[in-house]
Amino acid sequence: MSNENDAYEYQTSDAATSWKEVAPGVWRLRIGSPEGLSPLALIGAEPDIAALGLMEAAPPPFRWSDITVEECGNNAKLLVLPLDGQERLYGTGLQFIRSNQRGRTRYLRVNSDPKQDTGETHAPVPFYVSDKGYGVLVDTSRIVTMHLGSTLLTSDTDTEWIRDRNLDPEWRATMPSPRVEIKLPSDGAFLYVFGGPKLRDAVARYNLYCGGGALPPKWGLGFWHRVPTLHTDEEALREALEYRERDVPCDVIGLEPGWHSRSYPVTGEWDGGRFPDPPSFVRRMGEAGFRINLWEHPYLSPDSGMYSKLRPMSGSHTVWGGIAPDYALTEASAVYKEHHLREHVSFGVAGYKLDECDGSELTNNAWMFPDHARFPSGLDGESMRQLYGLMFQKMTYDLYRAENRRTYGLVRASGAGASSLPYALYSDLYDHKQFIRALCNASYCGLLWTPEVRKARNAEDWARRMQTVCFSPLAMLNAWGDGTKPWSFPEVEGVVRHYIRLRMRLLPYLYTAFAEYREKGIPPIRAMSFEIPPEQLAAASGEGAGALDTTAGAYGKRRAKEWDDQYMYGNDMVVAPLVEGESEREVLLPEGVWYGLESGIRYIGGGIIRVASGVEHIPVFVREGAIIPMMPPLSHVPANGAKTELHLVHFGDAPGMCMLYDDDGETFDYERGGGSWHRVSVVPDGAGVLCGRLEGAGELPPSYCRIIWHLRQTSLEK
Amino acid sequence: MSNENDAYEYQTSDAATSWKEVAPGVWRLRIGSPEGLSPLALIGAEPDIAALGLMEAAPPPFRWSDITVEECGNNAKLLVLPLDGQERLYGTGLQFIRSNQRGRTRYLRVNSDPKQDTGETHAPVPFYVSDKGYGVLVDTSRIVTMHLGSTLLTSDTDTEWIRDRNLDPEWRATMPSPRVEIKLPSDGAFLYVFGGPKLRDAVARYNLYCGGGALPPKWGLGFWHRVPTLHTDEEALREALEYRERDVPCDVIGLEPGWHSRSYPVTGEWDGGRFPDPPSFVRRMGEAGFRINLWEHPYLSPDSGMYSKLRPMSGSHTVWGGIAPDYALTEASAVYKEHHLREHVSFGVAGYKLDECDGSELTNNAWMFPDHARFPSGLDGESMRQLYGLMFQKMTYDLYRAENRRTYGLVRASGAGASSLPYALYSDLYDHKQFIRALCNASYCGLLWTPEVRKARNAEDWARRMQTVCFSPLAMLNAWGDGTKPWSFPEVEGVVRHYIRLRMRLLPYLYTAFAEYREKGIPPIRAMSFEIPPEQLAAASGEGAGALDTTAGAYGKRRAKEWDDQYMYGNDMVVAPLVEGESEREVLLPEGVWYGLESGIRYIGGGIIRVASGVEHIPVFVREGAIIPMMPPLSHVPANGAKTELHLVHFGDAPGMCMLYDDDGETFDYERGGGSWHRVSVVPDGAGVLCGRLEGAGELPPSYCRIIWHLRQTSLEK
Repeated sequence: MSNENDAYEYQTSDAATSWKEVAPGVWRLRIGSPEGLSPLALIGAEPDIAALGLMEAAPPPFRWSDITVEECGNNAKLLVLPLDGQERLYGTGLQFIRSNQRGRTRYLRVNSDPKQDTGETHAPVPFYVSDKGYGVLVDTSRIVTMHLGSTLLTSDTDTEWIRDRNLDPEWRATMPSPRVEIKLPSDGAFLYVFGGPKLRDAVARYNLYCGGGALPPKWGLGFWHRVPTLHTDEEALREALEYRERDVPCDVIGLEPGWHSRSYPVTGEWDGGRFPDPPSFVRRMGEAGFRINLWEHPYLSPDSGMYSKLRPMSGSHTVWGGIAPDYALTEASAVYKEHHLREHVSFGVAGYKLDECDGSELTNNAWMFPDHARFPSGLDGESMRQLYGLMFQKMTYDLYRAENRRTYGLVRASGAGASSLPYALYSDLYDHKQFIRALCNASYCGLLWTPEVRKARNAEDWARRMQTVCFSPLAMLNAWGDGTKPWSFPEVEGVVRHYIRLRMRLLPYLYTAFAEYREKGIPPIRAMSFEIPPEQLAAASGEGAGALDTTAGAYGKRRAKEWDDQYMYGNDMVVAPLVEGESEREVLLPEGVWYGLESGIRYIGGGIIRVASGVEHIPVFVREGAIIPMMPPLSHVPANGAKTELHLVHFGDAPGMCMLYDDDGETFDYERGGGSWHRVSVVPDGAGVLCGRLEGAGELPPSYCRIIWHLRQTSLEK
Repeated sequence: MSNENDAYEYQTSDAATSWKEVAPGVWRLRIGSPEGLSPLALIGAEPDIAALGLMEAAPPPFRWSDITVEECGNNAKLLVLPLDGQERLYGTGLQFIRSNQRGRTRYLRVNSDPKQDTGETHAPVPFYVSDKGYGVLVDTSRIVTMHLGSTLLTSDTDTEWIRDRNLDPEWRATMPSPRVEIKLPSDGAFLYVFGGPKLRDAVARYNLYCGGGALPPKWGLGFWHRVPTLHTDEEALREALEYRERDVPCDVIGLEPGWHSRSYPVTGEWDGGRFPDPPSFVRRMGEAGFRINLWEHPYLSPDSGMYSKLRPMSGSHTVWGGIAPDYALTEASAVYKEHHLREHVSFGVAGYKLDECDGSELTNNAWMFPDHARFPSGLDGESMRQLYGLMFQKMTYDLYRAENRRTYGLVRASGAGASSLPYALYSDLYDHKQFIRALCNASYCGLLWTPEVRKARNAEDWARRMQTVCFSPLAMLNAWGDGTKPWSFPEVEGVVRHYIRLRMRLLPYLYTAFAEYREKGIPPIRAMSFEIPPEQLAAASGEGAGALDTTAGAYGKRRAKEWDDQYMYGNDMVVAPLVEGESEREVLLPEGVWYGLESGIRYIGGGIIRVASGVEHIPVFVREGAIIPMMPPLSHVPANGAKTELHLVHFGDAPGMCMLYDDDGETFDYERGGGSWHRVSVVPDGAGVLCGRLEGAGELPPSYCRIIWHLRQTSLEK
């Protein structure tokens, strides 16, 4: 456990009840005697003390005596934290239904069917951040129930607040509660408090304490395509080359269950019929500029070569008939890594899609080991299910790291402390609005999320989903079951091509945003509350009594507008997607002057604007003075060492500045001085004319052969 | 606890591990040291040993050594029971999504939003019955998780069953498991096994062990109407009288929150503006033939006269600002009863609708005390929530019983052991097909359910819902929020009137079915598996691989047809509702010859038939030889002592027999000899001509002035 080695930890005689500042602005309390493996211990990332030390100092957000722990019967402990009247709480993981979790009870269990607003999700994280500027994390492998102002003590109930529902339209289903109540397992847990002073600082501290944000390889930020599950090597290659023929960039081809010799449960071994020569297939794909990503799930078939070794190190229960290995055991993890290195990584497979480490009780038949399953390491099914997604991320990440190659992949379960792991979450859900909200909510908890495109009801739906995914951490068409292509709807083929190309053009900008995630803990894609002060967000919300509806909701209440249908894309863009059926919408812009990225329309921020856009465009806004580093729309990301043009696009009439990050894009050499930061600015010269300047190590960032300035733009099109 | 006084209990020195036959065909095992109040102990109903003794003897369905209990870590115990390959399991309470629970994990928590198939529902019951003919009950106030063949041990996994999902269409998401695993709280629980030999016998034993089924007053089986929430006394009376003017029977008028002086939280006291003289209002309604039912919920406003007395006996947390009294305390229960007697029951209020004793985390704001809430009796929030609905049923039932008046009411939460409590469950859900399925599923667990009508998308939806509710335990239009009336859709006013009148005409038949519920434990309305042997049901099912759908279900599998869209109505009718958009359907008829109740069409049973019907009719089938006791379609059920005609309608050409029950319909005098059973038969006379005979105590059942025979009918219309 890296925490134990922490330079900031000081010793007290009473470790069980004392708060310790374990890093600048990060405090920890050990509650009880936490047993077993916790998420932070599992991931073992070193807190980035140096980066934390550079942040604005934060005083403790609580008087420690205001946080209490009590026994609450039935083998549980109750942790209680105070809450202000107006405070909003965000986080708790990959939530799909709402952003502000204040007033909610969150049952933070890993679950592949988060269709209801219980708190269960692919990636529940017992971490919430307050818009007052602090964060609270419970580090445990157990399911945690957080009552985020959803419970009211009799002694706290102010009878003045009680309204008569018969006649008073101000009646509310829940009155504001001044406390958070968190039910913990009997053995306790580690509690962390992250200081601010602002919400973004609390999230940054969380990410930095967890080792800093993930920096994907550059190719990971290109476009991804997953081919139909039973495709052969030749079919996959043909499908990939069609991207080249149609002038649509693509960097990654994903293979689905059919690459395994058997699936559900899987073997982890290539099917000799569909893939007779995997190394040659991976090489040929690589020559055409494509990386290979392999789908897998945890459950091993008796036909797998790993089976006989892992069966004695597996859980008491099977899933789909397959064993569930106990990767808390180093020996089991070694078998997994040895196999994956030999069978895939050694000849160039670029990463994995780690499916179904979440589990379901809701699909037509249940599939997952039960909570009471037993594993040889001593973990039970509850803890293993909460940790399983993290284990696979960690094993595969370590495997690539040992090769000094970066990976970027997909995972369907995650949890606390995952900031440094280069994996994007995805889901079998498919509501476009929820997919957008998940982009916002993932940003509070060190998670990345892809609103992957699978199919569409019509061309408009197709174009709208493609636009959103191109402004996300991982831009992917997942055609495994539907056989779709970017050009599946000819009416909008041009629109889709345009946005996939735009994603490629914006790669230097997005890559820099990820570098800031790694070094400063600020998520590249993030909710508006990172940018807009709480009082402004509150003023733009507004909630009230809703109409009673005896079939849709007997406790009618109008939801506050949370502005979780738009998000920051890097430091200088606001993305406000439209979904099928919409041609206009409201957008809440931060303070300042903004330009429509493609419309060139000028907006005054600091309030709500209304914007209309046909299916050709997604509304994106750029801050005046912003300098957006861009590159040409290449068919794929240049290999390490190749160079391309750098376009520095400056918006509006104001001076501006940004930082630009670059490195080889593929290795971990940046940890040993291989990365470079350049300061890019547009400032008036002596005559008052705006001029561009690039400053930093070396003349040019290593990936670029020349710089082209575009000053005083109002849109990309002009 | 009545169980402790049970004549059938024999003493052993090792109570913790021994099975005891506590009643004929009912065995009990004490697991651990169960703490606190269990549902059976709370209800305290006397097992009907005499009735159990009259049943066919049942051997123990298990070798007791095949049932094991083990510690499973994390403060829990694991109870394991064996399961056969083909066995189907029903029950676990008021489930809406499916009937056969085999292969499912059921998380049996009280929850007002059972929108997903987790097992949570208004009335979870840790009781399942097997079509092999036995039942298993866990009697505990704790949430129980039942894995009903949804978990598979590694050691039980037959690798022969593992299919390759890549290529094999026979692949399934879950393989059959040979065991039930039940996770119990650390303190343990009482486990009961109910013998058969058939499924219906196991359910009957469960109901008889819980005191026998509920027998509502006759007026409870008339039609119910709930008026809009803010109606005054005069408005309610006017709305009621419109039933009389339009010749639509109605027996009960329900008042919603607006009768309280304040609601959410409530006072339990009449609003002086809307109801200036409650006794006079109740009397005037009674004179017009209407009983009054009052809505309430548990949470008391500081403005209630009960508040100051109950606050010291309440839980640590409020709900909607109201206190949650601890009715496990006799003193608290006494305050509740004294208030309700004085303010309502003493001047004629006929019963209650006990709302929101279930709790929600999912509506726009959460409302319920948390699991960790503390109550003065020592119960915590988890146990109190699991028991709260039972407590209110028990308190109100006892209140009326003490007055020697029967009541019939509504409740939104229930649990184990509720068979004898005269309450029907209801829900804010509104899917018509789910409402029908709930009629089937309620019958496995001693529950009654009303598919109440609130509003409709159109006239067809309206008529279809009204048809279903008229063939249910409680026929109600709940217009509290929508202001609907039976004649809200003029196109189908005649259809709706016809079925409300038909419900009144069938009252002698339905009342007799309820008497059999009380005396023999056979539910009046029940699933087809009570009637059709398992092998026939299985043959009529059929399941297989479903189409893959990447948005609607990635683990596609066609659901087996469970025939839970039709049900037995008493001994001799099958009801097969149609829902909006349907004009025909399949019906699985039990063996024998059947007649369309209104079509007169003759069908050969023992298989699937196809039936078509316009919106004017709901498909109902009557067994050949059946004798259906009926009465005229009076405007309301005659008061105790009044008499009407008895029509005995015999179907088809075969001889037949039925029992007919009658009593005063209002009191508990039937427990002291006030009820009578008559044997009704249609048999050939010496010349071979079918003749009707009525035999039994006295000449005529007490509620009837004369008998009219209708022999050899093929439909009601002819």
